[in-house]
Formats: sequence, C-alpha cells, structure tokens
Amino acid sequence: MASLFTFDLLAKEGMARAGVFHTAHGPLLTPVYAPVGTQASVKAVTPRQLHEVGASLVLANTYHLYLRPGDALVAALGGVHRFMGWDGPMLTDSGGFQVFSLAGGSGKQSLRKIDDDGVTFRSHIDGRTHRFTPEKVMEIEQNLGADIAMVLDECSVPDDYDYLKRQALPRTHAWAERCKAVHTRADQALFGIVQGGIYPDLRQASAAALIPLDFPGYAIGGLSVGESKADMHVALDATTPALPEDKPRYLMGVGTPEDLVEGVARGIDIFDCVLPTRVARNGQALLRMGKLNMRNARFAEDSAPLDETCDCYTCRHFSRAYIRHLFVAKEMLGATLLTIHNLHTMLSLMGDIRSAVVAGRFAEFRAAFWDARKGGIRESGNLSSSFA
Amino acid sequence: MASLFTFDLLAKEGMARAGVFHTAHGPLLTPVYAPVGTQASVKAVTPRQLHEVGASLVLANTYHLYLRPGDALVAALGGVHRFMGWDGPMLTDSGGFQVFSLAGGSGKQSLRKIDDDGVTFRSHIDGRTHRFTPEKVMEIEQNLGADIAMVLDECSVPDDYDYLKRQALPRTHAWAERCKAVHTRADQALFGIVQGGIYPDLRQASAAALIPLDFPGYAIGGLSVGESKADMHVALDATTPALPEDKPRYLMGVGTPEDLVEGVARGIDIFDCVLPTRVARNGQALLRMGKLNMRNARFAEDSAPLDETCDCYTCRHFSRAYIRHLFVAKEMLGATLLTIHNLHTMLSLMGDIRSAVVAGRFAEFRAAFWDARKGGIRESGNLSSSFA
Repeated sequence: MASLFTFDLLAKEGMARAGVFHTAHGPLLTPVYAPVGTQASVKAVTPRQLHEVGASLVLANTYHLYLRPGDALVAALGGVHRFMGWDGPMLTDSGGFQVFSLAGGSGKQSLRKIDDDGVTFRSHIDGRTHRFTPEKVMEIEQNLGADIAMVLDECSVPDDYDYLKRQALPRTHAWAERCKAVHTRADQALFGIVQGGIYPDLRQASAAALIPLDFPGYAIGGLSVGESKADMHVALDATTPALPEDKPRYLMGVGTPEDLVEGVARGIDIFDCVLPTRVARNGQALLRMGKLNMRNARFAEDSAPLDETCDCYTCRHFSRAYIRHLFVAKEMLGATLLTIHNLHTMLSLMGDIRSAVVAGRFAEFRAAFWDARKGGIRESGNLSSSFA
Repeated sequence: MASLFTFDLLAKEGMARAGVFHTAHGPLLTPVYAPVGTQASVKAVTPRQLHEVGASLVLANTYHLYLRPGDALVAALGGVHRFMGWDGPMLTDSGGFQVFSLAGGSGKQSLRKIDDDGVTFRSHIDGRTHRFTPEKVMEIEQNLGADIAMVLDECSVPDDYDYLKRQALPRTHAWAERCKAVHTRADQALFGIVQGGIYPDLRQASAAALIPLDFPGYAIGGLSVGESKADMHVALDATTPALPEDKPRYLMGVGTPEDLVEGVARGIDIFDCVLPTRVARNGQALLRMGKLNMRNARFAEDSAPLDETCDCYTCRHFSRAYIRHLFVAKEMLGATLLTIHNLHTMLSLMGDIRSAVVAGRFAEFRAAFWDARKGGIRESGNLSSSFA
C-alpha cells in the first residue's frame, strides 16, 4: 500500500501525464474529471448512478455546506462521505470562489467585503452575515472531511494586473501559509492554489511562492471566469511547467470536453465542472462532438439513442423521442437520464484520454478528437459546436 | 406455458386470493400493487430503480399519453413498453377518470360534455377540444399496447343513486359492449369496469351486466373518490362476490397501505395509486405504520434511516438528516430517494400479504398489521396515522 498522498506518475507524453494519487478513500487514477455535488448531492443522480457512469472523485462545495446544513452537523453525522453516501475520494473547495462571486463593493447592497485577514459576506439564502478567514475555512473543511481540501484564496478578475500583483496574490499566498499552519487532519490532503489571472509572470510568481510550502498538490484557480480560451491556454502553459512534477495539478471549475483534452495536453491531472450536470437539467445532451438540445421538435419521432456510440444506461434503453417527451412533459426523469449520459460522456472521454497517455499515443488522440469535432459539426445539422 | 390471460388461483383464505395472471410480458403474481407512470414515467425513478424496488406491473394514463406525445407516435416507436423502457407487464386506464375529473356542465367554462355516444373535453394543456368514444379509446389503448387495457366508463359522483341507475350505469354497460366489439389486439387483455357508486344493489347490477361479456378481468371503478372508508368497504363487499372467481379483480386508484390489506381481505387482486410517489415529492416517507414529514426540523440531526426495518436502497445508504437536508436545499435527489422508499414500502407490504395468503395465515397478518399500526401511532411522536 502506497503511503497517503503520494502521486505515482505512470506515464508522460509531452506535458500530458497519467498517474495515481493515493487518498484515504482509495487510489485516484489521473487524469480525472470530478462531477460537482454542490450541496452534497450531484443533482438528479444517486451515488450508485455516479459509480455506474464511472465517477471516481466527487466535489462538494464548502460555502454551500457551511451555510446548509452546517459543517458541524456533517461532522456529527460522520463526515461528508457518509452524509451523502459516497465512499470514494472526495474534494471540497474553500468557498472562496462562491464568496468572491457575490457582489462586492462598499455600498449597502454589497454582499461581501475583503480585508487582509479574511472576507465578510452575506448568505445568499437568508442575508445573514458570515466571515471566512483561512483558519475558519480550515475548521470547516476538516469538519466536512473530504480527502482533498483547498486553501482559501482570493478569486479576483483575471485581467487587472496591478490589483492581482499588489493585493490579490500577496493575500492569496499569506492565506495559503495560514491554512497550512492550522491544518491538522492527517487523512486529508490540503492543496495550494496558484492565482495570477491571465498573466504568465504572475502565475509563475504565484507558483514560486507556494512551492516552498510543499503542498501534496496544487490547484490552478481563477480561470474559466470569462477570459478567452487562448488566454487560459497561455496561463496554463506558464503555470504547469513551474509546478513540481511529483504533485497532482488541479484546474478548478473547468470544463468542456475540449477543455479536458487541452488541459491534459498542458499537464493538468484533475478537473471539475458543473457543465454536464447543469446543461442536462436544461435539456442539453453532451456528445464528444457537440451538443443536442433535446427540447427541439426535430427529435419528436427520433427512435435513435442520444449517441449511437455510447453505452451508458440512458443510451442503452431510451430514444431521443422519449427523452424529448420527458422534457416537454416536465418529467424529472429527463434530467436524470441526461445527467447520466452527460457524465458518462465526460468520464468515458477522460478514460480514453488516460488510456492514450498510458499507451503513448495522446498526440494522435488529440489530433483525432479535433478532426472528429470539425467533421461532426460540418456533417450534422444536429450538432452545435459551442457549449453553454 | 399457460395460455394468455388465464388466471391461476393458487391460494384462497376467506375472500383473499393469491394467483398468477399470464400476460404477453410475463406472469403477473397477484395480489399486486402497480406504481403509476402517468406520462410514461413513474415520476423521479428510472425503470431499473422500479425493478429494484420490486415493481412488476406499471400503469400509464391513456388521457395523458393521447394528448402528449400522442398514441400514434408511441405506436410508431414500438409501443409504451419500449417507449418508456419497461419490459414487464403494463396496464393503461381508459382516460375516463381524467376526463370526468375535468369540470363539467353546460356553461362556457365547461371542460367536458357527456352524451350517450361519448364525451367531448378540452385539453388541460392547451384548451383544444377532443372527443373520446368507446371506439376511439380502444384505438388509443391498442396503439399504446399495454398488456391490460380498460374499457371507457362513466365515472360520476358515488352518491347520486338516481343518476347512477338511470344514466351512468346503462351508459357504462353500453360502452363496455362497444369497446369489446372493436377490441382486436390478441396480446392485450381488455378488462370491464364495474360502477355503481356506494350502492350494493347497483354494484351487483353492474357486475351482472358485464359478466356476459366475458372479460378476462374486471375492475372496480369510482371508489376512493371522496366517499368514506366504510362506504368503500360496503361497495367492495357487495361487488367481489358477484364477480367470477377465475378472473382477476382490479380496484382502480386505491390506495394506502391499509387499503391494500383491506382490499385483499375483500377479494381484490390488483391495485394502483399515485399516493406513494406523489407524497414522496412533497417530502413524506411512508412506513407501514404511518408517515414521516421529512421537512420537519426534528429530523435535522437524525442519523437513523427512514425505517430501521426497511432494506431499500434509500434506507441502506442514507440518514433521515440527509434526506431532510435534500428537501430543505431543494435537491431533486430527495424526491428520488423517497419515491424509492415509498414504493418499496408498498411493494414489500404487498409481497408479505401475498406470502401470508399463500401460507394460509392472512387473517393473522391482517390482525397483526392493525395492532402494529395502533401501537406505532401510540408509541411514536414521529408517526402520523392518516395518509394525505
């Protein structure tokens, strides 16, 4: 049995890697995509259905669980794994992203205020005031008890160089140090978070500031927040080479099928994103080559499965016509069946990416993926190329 | 292999029976409770989850599927089994109950008008006018292709003796004859429906009128529509002895756990009801001995399962505190987990009733059921005795 939080690198091709990160809830094969269980539930599916579509890592949100039902209650009930019935590896974010997404400023309508010690915010549920400091967030995440926890960081706009350099980065690094100082759970890996917006020099400076703290893994935060794909790629290209080879790298809140391919190509090991589950509830089916809007009348009599090449529960048992009917008739089962399919699309893509890296043919895989997408979009009126 | 639609009576104790009804989708063990899949989906659960909780017969509603997505489309897609991915026995009602539940009368606001030839009604979806005749309903139900179909009947108020005797019953019997005359599907059993409200003599007259048509099964309609339990029992006591021993008897739209016990005691073989699935979506857990309102704050820290004696997926994996959290946080999974549990409660109760009848100890079972309910309600502040 490998010791906890070691990261075994099994294969490398260019910057792409395949490995195993050892957690208290078993080995986590990377690269990996984590479905998001915001409130300790991946919306519309059971833990068993998650397991069946191939999920290995599940994320839960510290901000949401702190507010409801409360981290002390989750701890009293045995921790977030037991609470939600998931016995595989889990990850909690720090709540920073949600808090910084609340409207800021100094007026009466302000929902959050930041200072060097922490951030004061008002709950989106009842408007009550709360305060996150690095120490408070560590208390919450240790109460929740996920296998991987994140330090509190400042998620600011990605393109204000001066603010990032003079305020956000120094604060983020000081908070990382304070988190590390009070984090004591031996069965929980605490990851540092590299910030720096879209600027290569700030990203490198942020990585350099965090590496001496010797975290068992590093996240890349503050991306996929409105910047262009090109800017995101520039930021990734500057960051991953500056991080230790022997630690997993987690690109927070990203992304689409394309993002998985391009992120792995740039040395990312862990991804999470609400996209596949959120668009499922709106009636969108994700395919590797694009998406289908299942409310569309053109599917009304379509006896084909969502994706002829897919072997998920939904595609093995149900037609496009039935799934369209469920959305038109406002049946909850529609969201469940599309969530199963969309997660399967992401997880089977990730599995294929991993196999390609292990076999030393990731470059071919990546080229074929982009060729197929272009072909798929050109040939089929059913597919749209962009993701919501 | 037994021939289609034969009903093998395996055991009898008083009026209670255990048997097997042979359908084109396999043998149906009776007594049986059918979950309701109104729009070709049992709300909040997949067909696999239905199978896992022990469902053997599923009902779908002709009125709803006729309006949306349309019976011709369902037929083109291979019938309702294939459409919804359920490969066991299925039953469709005639749509009569839904149509007669629309507001009637002669004014401009009237949603339906009945005459001796059929009933004209306006869709609850878009207000368009439609007409059901016995012949039209047979066309629809044969398009849907369930294993058991129902004749069109008139569902009127249960306590207007004169109207029932002079209008509703003659119409119901004439329509049954017309349905029988045009029904041709050899793989579909067409059941007659006994009406007559709460009046023993009308129930017996209705049974006597239908028996010469030699249906492969008989339903009892127009009950559980607002009359007292005592009136329902009087009607059942008058009806079942008037029906053939060698045909299954179906009590439409009933009921609660108590109704299953008391219905079997009066010779009923088939039940259906939306209660367990509907109350699940409102946060109510059904137990044999009563119900729990899972939104209640007293469950906030309760680490016990819904029912210590239950072995359903929900009770094996989740606490009352987690299920309460899901409802408070408006997570869809709450409805799914309670639907699984509530259906399991009904289906395992039905299974135990069947075993008791087969073993010749149903009288004991019935007495113990009522003793336990009284004890449960007396001893536990958690339980309410009445059902929504």
